[in-house]
Amino acid sequence: MTDLAIGIDLGGTNMRAALFRGLQAAAATPHGDAESAAVAARPVVERREKVGSERDPEPVIARLAAMIQGLLAEAGCADLPVPVGIGFAGMLRGDRGYVVTSPNVGWREVPFGDLLRAKLGPRHNVAVENDANAIAWGEYHMGAGRGVKDIVVVYVGTGIGGGAVVNRTLVNGSGAALEIGHVKVVWDETARRCACGLKGCIEAYAGGEQISRRARAELAGGARSAAVELAGSIEAVNPGHLDAAAAEGDDYALGLWAEVGPLLGVVLANAVTLFNPQRLILGGGVLSRTPVLREHAIAALHVAVNPPAVESLVVENAVLGDDAGVVGGALLAGG
Amino acid sequence: MTDLAIGIDLGGTNMRAALFRGLQAAAATPHGDAESAAVAARPVVERREKVGSERDPEPVIARLAAMIQGLLAEAGCADLPVPVGIGFAGMLRGDRGYVVTSPNVGWREVPFGDLLRAKLGPRHNVAVENDANAIAWGEYHMGAGRGVKDIVVVYVGTGIGGGAVVNRTLVNGSGAALEIGHVKVVWDETARRCACGLKGCIEAYAGGEQISRRARAELAGGARSAAVELAGSIEAVNPGHLDAAAAEGDDYALGLWAEVGPLLGVVLANAVTLFNPQRLILGGGVLSRTPVLREHAIAALHVAVNPPAVESLVVENAVLGDDAGVVGGALLAGG
Repeated sequence: MTDLAIGIDLGGTNMRAALFRGLQAAAATPHGDAESAAVAARPVVERREKVGSERDPEPVIARLAAMIQGLLAEAGCADLPVPVGIGFAGMLRGDRGYVVTSPNVGWREVPFGDLLRAKLGPRHNVAVENDANAIAWGEYHMGAGRGVKDIVVVYVGTGIGGGAVVNRTLVNGSGAALEIGHVKVVWDETARRCACGLKGCIEAYAGGEQISRRARAELAGGARSAAVELAGSIEAVNPGHLDAAAAEGDDYALGLWAEVGPLLGVVLANAVTLFNPQRLILGGGVLSRTPVLREHAIAALHVAVNPPAVESLVVENAVLGDDAGVVGGALLAGG
Repeated sequence: MTDLAIGIDLGGTNMRAALFRGLQAAAATPHGDAESAAVAARPVVERREKVGSERDPEPVIARLAAMIQGLLAEAGCADLPVPVGIGFAGMLRGDRGYVVTSPNVGWREVPFGDLLRAKLGPRHNVAVENDANAIAWGEYHMGAGRGVKDIVVVYVGTGIGGGAVVNRTLVNGSGAALEIGHVKVVWDETARRCACGLKGCIEAYAGGEQISRRARAELAGGARSAAVELAGSIEAVNPGHLDAAAAEGDDYALGLWAEVGPLLGVVLANAVTLFNPQRLILGGGVLSRTPVLREHAIAALHVAVNPPAVESLVVENAVLGDDAGVVGGALLAGG
């Protein structure tokens, strides 16, 4: 075997493809040499493009195929049967990479995996997973999840995604597992509307997009916060500004975090109570810029969790960062 | 291989041991002959005893060992290395059968597995799991979970327990996975106290013991319900009486179910959103006698669940009943 694999990260803004060498071998030695693992987790060659405004499945898939063929040509292995694994920002059904819905990419009911297979030809094995699942698989093998058998990964960015590994296998259920952003935390008449269309999801409270939108509306409606000065204007306020304000004792920001932090903490606690993992791995663009919110959430996690489940738990930060999706995708590809 | 195995179900009231033949072979053909599976799931010989009032680990474990040896002698296989698997009503740590706590059996910090191993000698492999996990493993191989790869099992009886199978493996985490009774559903000042010591667990709302205790207190405090006539006295009211009253339009019972049903439904929904299983299997002494409550919970499940996760979901009743624990125990034993 060549131990070559291509990982793809297809999100609402960027599409990225990377060719790896030796990833499976490094993943297979989870207690082994961290340095050679880090080397294997670095792409041999890679390409990035903006998804742009033309988002119909056919042209996007044609561009993906061209990126893949370009990578293979650049690495001098255009004739090799290199497997391809994709982390996709949407909800999937089944194990062929069928997209049920992706608000970010703008697709509904698209047989993505089969369309890409048809485009690439039978030489390339194609695996598709939800992007958060791909990230979890990457962190498990090459990042903060190395050396244990069960992990839960929660990414808080624009939205909230999750992934889990149980008994050293990726949890995918019927294709839509670990949609932790859509765990319900409020079910009374106050429940906030989520981007998914339902109400009361944790993403409607703690997702970055929703935090920003809510804070801007409340600040435009007369609430006062130091976050506005930090941001320059109400319209520029984001979770990072709110967290910086909270750190300096700002009443508005502290009040918002006192609501959002415990809700996020309860969701984390309930997931830990169910999966009882050895590691809970937190990442994403919001959590990395909101240490005060993170602290509130972790405090609530410890109050709400089933105590025996926390004994063996270590809470870690995701370490692969932007690379997690392509690394996880390449690992999902096999090869 | 003889394909013999002993399954044990050790709860707060009863201890039961059963010897099975051909269980592993029947379990290994999940799409196969249901009739021979049903035959294999019937014990060759079995014994039952009350746990009684002497509950120190040493005498209880000595009685278990005597039951096991009695079964083996009765079946004429006293010299064979028959493996033993136990479903235990408590929370465990690690993979050696260490008991953290069992309110029902009355144990805390007991190295149960190792004590039983020492008593039985090296000939017998001993596996210990939480009882709900053993039930899930039994239903997966020989009951309502046959033929799929992912299931979630929720038992509502005196308390609430759960188990799950992901990618055909039992989810045990660090020994305390799927303690779904201790998922939090209320975290404000009204949160009810659970038997576990914490507040706001679903078991504090929908566990049979807690429903009975709460209803009796409210009825003794002046609330009126037809459940009292059905039960004969306030002190005899149980969830079955309340459900029968609710079915006839009783305001008190309907009000209670309108609170408890949605809470249980949200817990089921959130578990389905996370695991995205092909089957959700419901069982236990409360749910089997409370069809109205069950209906409320299932209705709430459909409102709260992430829609793609419910597409592939079938909700089933547990089919192994009282046998699930010993069948699951024997399957955990291997052999």
